[in-house]
Amino acid sequence: MRVVLSSCFLLAACASMPEPSGVPAKARTLAEILESSPASDWRSLDAENTMYMDLPAGRVVIELSPVFAPRTVENIKALVRQKYFDGLGVNRVQDNFVAQWGDPDEKRALGAAQEKVDPEFTRAIDAGMAFTRLPDRDVYAPETGFSGGFPAARDAAAGRAWLVHCYASVGVGRGNDADSGNGAELYAVIGNAPRILDRNITVAGRVVRGIDLLSSLPRGTGPLGFYEKPEQRTPIRQVRLAADVPPAERESLEILRTESATFAAVVEARRFRRDDWYKVPAGAVDVCAVSVPVRPAKSAK
Amino acid sequence: MRVVLSSCFLLAACASMPEPSGVPAKARTLAEILESSPASDWRSLDAENTMYMDLPAGRVVIELSPVFAPRTVENIKALVRQKYFDGLGVNRVQDNFVAQWGDPDEKRALGAAQEKVDPEFTRAIDAGMAFTRLPDRDVYAPETGFSGGFPAARDAAAGRAWLVHCYASVGVGRGNDADSGNGAELYAVIGNAPRILDRNITVAGRVVRGIDLLSSLPRGTGPLGFYEKPEQRTPIRQVRLAADVPPAERESLEILRTESATFAAVVEARRFRRDDWYKVPAGAVDVCAVSVPVRPAKSAK
Repeated sequence: MRVVLSSCFLLAACASMPEPSGVPAKARTLAEILESSPASDWRSLDAENTMYMDLPAGRVVIELSPVFAPRTVENIKALVRQKYFDGLGVNRVQDNFVAQWGDPDEKRALGAAQEKVDPEFTRAIDAGMAFTRLPDRDVYAPETGFSGGFPAARDAAAGRAWLVHCYASVGVGRGNDADSGNGAELYAVIGNAPRILDRNITVAGRVVRGIDLLSSLPRGTGPLGFYEKPEQRTPIRQVRLAADVPPAERESLEILRTESATFAAVVEARRFRRDDWYKVPAGAVDVCAVSVPVRPAKSAK
Repeated sequence: MRVVLSSCFLLAACASMPEPSGVPAKARTLAEILESSPASDWRSLDAENTMYMDLPAGRVVIELSPVFAPRTVENIKALVRQKYFDGLGVNRVQDNFVAQWGDPDEKRALGAAQEKVDPEFTRAIDAGMAFTRLPDRDVYAPETGFSGGFPAARDAAAGRAWLVHCYASVGVGRGNDADSGNGAELYAVIGNAPRILDRNITVAGRVVRGIDLLSSLPRGTGPLGFYEKPEQRTPIRQVRLAADVPPAERESLEILRTESATFAAVVEARRFRRDDWYKVPAGAVDVCAVSVPVRPAKSAK
């Protein structure tokens, strides 16, 4: 069968192979790396900062980042807890860009949530902040890497760090005013990483499961990919915080810790592909080309 | 309305704005640039190297690159002209990666087309080769830019150039043998630019219209995103070369010449966004973040 090989998160496709030139002799395939990883290199999702968005086709699971967007995440949680999103819809799907949901008419009451939220486009670097730096250059930022499971960037000279826009990143729509994004309109990236948005809008989290439920929706034919008719929107049955769902009904997912040795090995396996299919290893990797591994939780923990 | 602004190819969204800091004073918006472009900066598609793939939802228009993949393009055209693809289907849609079409069972006769084609993963740089270089660094290649309308990269030291994998790039599925890609299985990129594939597989062209017809298809649930049941495939009504379609039935599209002054201005408008919405211009752009403008042809030419 003629194919083009993938990121290899379908582990069946990740066979071991002879040593290509220029690759460290003891490199392992991604499958081998993940299979041999210690349980301690994985973490559960924090139920207080995990959102479930239930669409007719299934559930989208979003991990929020209170480290990078504390005020915004608090506001989103306030909206979710008062059932702000229930019965609204995905109202915009722009090809190679974003799927967006919320109340396009902005008529629904914000209740306990704030109308304006100070922007959290970047944050100060602090000493305790996790940052697993990638070794390769980046087009947009002085440094890129991962912080607490999220793709991120840093500018040490400016003392700032920020979450970057990769596929499945979740951000906060806003108007022209920097403080006009309050979480009532959210979007997920469904195309090539729109890094040009970095530092211009608050990234609040990322979809850890179910991005395909958004990326495969019909594209809107109005300006900016908005649907022209309300009935074209995909209805949102409900959005809930995992913490507000009975434990037995929560999604059991584990995320590979991006500060772990296993993740460092995953990055190396991406920089130097081991599959027999590859002829020339890239020898470098873009921050948005490394998907942080997610798996069903192994038994009870 | 709270939104996240796009690549601005929806021109209505591209308003003029006051000068942000750090931006050349006379920069224009993308809309202004395109509106004032001379007709000579646009070109028609070459009917001999343009493919129409007709799906139930509409037509996908693919421009082929005989400059970068002459043998492969010749083989694809031989397949198309003997109606190889008619009645086959899109048999694989892997989220954030590719949509692939052809004969997954590899039973259909190749006829006048070759079973094996020498790989065209890269080609020699020659003096006459167009290359509009981007000024910014790239993660994967020494130089990136555009050649004849296609996103491309160069390694001057090695004397090689190649088409890169961006959103909507069209490549040639292959088995583990480098010469096993003959064009009977083609894919289009529908996710974050899989640059790791560069120099590992032949890129034969790109979708210039209708990529959304592929990117919004349901994802396959089998390994590598293949559909598990044949009836899940999206049928291909027919694939034709534009040259084999009566002129009155051809798509009238124009592509901005990537060697033109207008395109250089487009790139600068991407590097320094002029929309009122943007607060911090990126000051750099990735080769896969610049879409080559396509428009309906203006009147008769």
